[in-house]
Amino acid sequence: MDDRRFVLSLGCRDRTGIVARISTFLFEAGGSITEAAYHADAGAGWFFTRQVVLASSITCSLAELRTRFATVAAEFGPEVDWRLSDSWEPKRVVLLVSKEAHCLHDLLGRITDGELAATVSAVIGNHPDLAPVAAAHGVDFAHIPFPPDPAERGPAFAQVQELVDSHDPHAIVLARFMQVLPPALCEHWAGRALNIHHSFLPSFVGARPYHQAFARGVKLIGATCHYVTAELDAGPIVEQDVIRVSHADDVADMVRKGRDIERLVLSRGVRWHLEDRVLVHGSKTVVFS
Amino acid sequence: MDDRRFVLSLGCRDRTGIVARISTFLFEAGGSITEAAYHADAGAGWFFTRQVVLASSITCSLAELRTRFATVAAEFGPEVDWRLSDSWEPKRVVLLVSKEAHCLHDLLGRITDGELAATVSAVIGNHPDLAPVAAAHGVDFAHIPFPPDPAERGPAFAQVQELVDSHDPHAIVLARFMQVLPPALCEHWAGRALNIHHSFLPSFVGARPYHQAFARGVKLIGATCHYVTAELDAGPIVEQDVIRVSHADDVADMVRKGRDIERLVLSRGVRWHLEDRVLVHGSKTVVFS
Amino acid sequence: MDDRRFVLSLGCRDRTGIVARISTFLFEAGGSITEAAYHADAGAGWFFTRQVVLASSITCSLAELRTRFATVAAEFGPEVDWRLSDSWEPKRVVLLVSKEAHCLHDLLGRITDGELAATVSAVIGNHPDLAPVAAAHGVDFAHIPFPPDPAERGPAFAQVQELVDSHDPHAIVLARFMQVLPPALCEHWAGRALNIHHSFLPSFVGARPYHQAFARGVKLIGATCHYVTAELDAGPIVEQDVIRVSHADDVADMVRKGRDIERLVLSRGVRWHLEDRVLVHGSKTVVFS
Amino acid sequence: MDDRRFVLSLGCRDRTGIVARISTFLFEAGGSITEAAYHADAGAGWFFTRQVVLASSITCSLAELRTRFATVAAEFGPEVDWRLSDSWEPKRVVLLVSKEAHCLHDLLGRITDGELAATVSAVIGNHPDLAPVAAAHGVDFAHIPFPPDPAERGPAFAQVQELVDSHDPHAIVLARFMQVLPPALCEHWAGRALNIHHSFLPSFVGARPYHQAFARGVKLIGATCHYVTAELDAGPIVEQDVIRVSHADDVADMVRKGRDIERLVLSRGVRWHLEDRVLVHGSKTVVFS
Repeated sequence: MDDRRFVLSLGCRDRTGIVARISTFLFEAGGSITEAAYHADAGAGWFFTRQVVLASSITCSLAELRTRFATVAAEFGPEVDWRLSDSWEPKRVVLLVSKEAHCLHDLLGRITDGELAATVSAVIGNHPDLAPVAAAHGVDFAHIPFPPDPAERGPAFAQVQELVDSHDPHAIVLARFMQVLPPALCEHWAGRALNIHHSFLPSFVGARPYHQAFARGVKLIGATCHYVTAELDAGPIVEQDVIRVSHADDVADMVRKGRDIERLVLSRGVRWHLEDRVLVHGSKTVVFS
Repeated sequence: MDDRRFVLSLGCRDRTGIVARISTFLFEAGGSITEAAYHADAGAGWFFTRQVVLASSITCSLAELRTRFATVAAEFGPEVDWRLSDSWEPKRVVLLVSKEAHCLHDLLGRITDGELAATVSAVIGNHPDLAPVAAAHGVDFAHIPFPPDPAERGPAFAQVQELVDSHDPHAIVLARFMQVLPPALCEHWAGRALNIHHSFLPSFVGARPYHQAFARGVKLIGATCHYVTAELDAGPIVEQDVIRVSHADDVADMVRKGRDIERLVLSRGVRWHLEDRVLVHGSKTVVFS
Repeated sequence: MDDRRFVLSLGCRDRTGIVARISTFLFEAGGSITEAAYHADAGAGWFFTRQVVLASSITCSLAELRTRFATVAAEFGPEVDWRLSDSWEPKRVVLLVSKEAHCLHDLLGRITDGELAATVSAVIGNHPDLAPVAAAHGVDFAHIPFPPDPAERGPAFAQVQELVDSHDPHAIVLARFMQVLPPALCEHWAGRALNIHHSFLPSFVGARPYHQAFARGVKLIGATCHYVTAELDAGPIVEQDVIRVSHADDVADMVRKGRDIERLVLSRGVRWHLEDRVLVHGSKTVVFS
Repeated sequence: MDDRRFVLSLGCRDRTGIVARISTFLFEAGGSITEAAYHADAGAGWFFTRQVVLASSITCSLAELRTRFATVAAEFGPEVDWRLSDSWEPKRVVLLVSKEAHCLHDLLGRITDGELAATVSAVIGNHPDLAPVAAAHGVDFAHIPFPPDPAERGPAFAQVQELVDSHDPHAIVLARFMQVLPPALCEHWAGRALNIHHSFLPSFVGARPYHQAFARGVKLIGATCHYVTAELDAGPIVEQDVIRVSHADDVADMVRKGRDIERLVLSRGVRWHLEDRVLVHGSKTVVFS
């Protein structure tokens, strides 16, 4: 089955003729387009596109295609941001976890089943509890303990950073990691670190969102997958979803129902990120799902 | 068709034996139960129930049933709050509107179609724009202009209050009224005034929530029906729902999509309120929908 | 506000270079693209696109643009199917109704509110019941009675056809019309007649779908907007949605809840059709919503 | 934490006074009710209830409570069907699987996480593929091969039955088992065997429902958890849910999206069954969720 694809994703200042320029370029390279998506944000004056071509239809190598396209991209101004990737190239993922297992079970299950095209380079936990889950999937687990006092966690974060960076991952997934990354680390991993927050942001920022939701008496609870930024729970949102609750649901029920939404929302966000479907601009995302 | 029902709704401090006491009482009155719902809130220590009996099965008058039940209710302590209503008794509603027509169209359409068992006593607008919509449904419309300066709106609110109170309505529905009620009026109409806020509360309190949602880049927008209280958009929530949006939706698209959710959420909230399905306790609701 | 748009929608046999050809054509005509969507159906070997340009950016008239594009389209083979429309050109709609008012209320309300860019040429009912609803919106209503015996309905359908065709409408909307169109009429109005069926097709084809749903004990009910074809309830589906029901909902509850879904699904289908967002190929649709 | 509960579930022919009789009985036994749900099906003339009491509030043993309640239940006629169970009593589950891993991963993950109060007695596969998944969770796996010819599968089914029955399970879960149980086995396991069908029934009964859905061009796909009966995919429905698809989704996309719904729907159905929340009457269910 001929399922190898080259994926071009690009964002640049909007102007007339970009679509024509890119599609003519791909046509001249022999490119048979299987997916194409465009978005022009009139307010921001920004243009976004993602185009997928059959790798076998391209008459040159991917390296050569990248070299040629760099010339085209340069025409779109100095702020242009683009990637040209190979769907067969393995995407490396590092997972940061704590004690809650459901997101880890879910992501590892999806990767084992071939649903997510990724290899897990490592699972890092600030507690040792989830080591057996990683072991069951044959994945390395590293336990890096965090001291109770937030002011003393610098060395632990440094260790996490070193281990993560040693794998040069496409995605760092905070799968209920429960630790707030220091601003420098947010900056260092900008656009690659995905978090799952267990509320429908911007409601219930911070700790114990299900308790906050219960106290407020909302009729739906949700989860949000977003890029990590220095401001807590304020990064660009990739995906959100909700589930109905009622007066009959106590906090424990909300936690249980919420887990289903967390799993779905995080796995969608990770898949879209790995498939270059998410383009970030400022504090918002364009998701060609 | 024998569709007349007596509806008992009750909230009181929880203790053992309440269900047995009420169901035995109804049984002794001949009551054939068609719907029954219970909820015990362990945290609040409060008990809630709603029970519906076939009116024709009751061996005494409704007035007599109320008198008899008052004795039973008294056993449940001084904080007990109960109502015993007749599904055939017409429920009076006053609608407060501004310029946006969609919720008014929707509610009047549902009442005309017989979907909401209510009679509209009056529609009051702070602008005259929606008078024709009321007229098309044969409903009285009163235009009470509001001065631009919030500090000078007291007399206008007094006029609204007088007109509303003259109808002694079961529900005062703020169908996109766009005016913040003064605290005294919130208190005066406590438990009877329902508002539709065009966001998924507690996100995006206050003005222009769709603009706030667009700026934040959320992936779902919503609407909330809640009881009006003195704190803005913080009253007990009756119903909420959401709809998916994407980067392709600008503020105008969100406004359009949001209207569908506002209509649904408000009409559900109004129906549940009129059918005595909503029991308020503190800042939260129990909804036996 | 510069909100005039020219909308190109096109379907043709797929091959390499179509996107480049069309986008280059639009670029050379000065076209500033505000929306663009593509789809290649690998199984069917068919290509679909919808592109929207700012009318003010086009350097020639719409008529001239159409003439020029005809030459381009001809390159895509004899099966090519395309339209180039003006968002400011009024779209004429005829509504066929029976006794149920909710879809009529909803569509007329949306048109009055400016949410649907359409003018209602006529409302035609096989019963007179909904004449007042049309009158309240200042729309012509024609009552064309249908004889009880289906075999004798030919003349009535001929009358309906004549009246509808006299308006040359962009859409004929069966808003709970409850009459099965004869095959010749389906053929005559192919691609323009939209029906709302009150089930989640292909479940519960034909009469009394809510009764069928109740009997089967499903946990969700739905509605389907589809193009009318000779085979009953089997035309290309434009939109579907569902709502949760439970054992506590009897048929009357399902009818009530279902109405909300019918309104939403029909109004979305009509809007997408009028905005040339729906491309039909065989028994399926591509919807660039 | 005092989380032990006794759960009474009961169905019987409806008549006046049942609620009073049961609640008085529980009150006299000291029962502090934490959850109570009632349903009267007017059409079927049947009454259903589920009541949960704090075990510590009951003044006698569970065995004694059962003996006493048997006398009460007998008053409700010979067709009465009731259970009185202990939330601390372990519920045994046998899982039947084939090659698809996602439902197995999900259920075992939930049980490991303590979300489903069950012990897995065995996993039985007609293929050996999922043995490692069971092993990773420390659960016994039995491979019982099925011959290709359906007519020759009798002995294999006999083996499955013998192994399942040796565990006397509360639930036999067909987690994408892909084999049609013989009528005698359906009968033998009536009310205990739960299947997940990967469509929104009654649409797309039988094989390859996602292919059927793709061919029909539906805009939502779904999954259904139902009790297994002799008629294929026609058993009482416990739970259903759907997810949106579009023209851009091919069959592989539908399979992927559908898996998320299958996981959710099956896990909800299993949980409700194990917690005695599902009461079957004829071809339908009452679910006190």
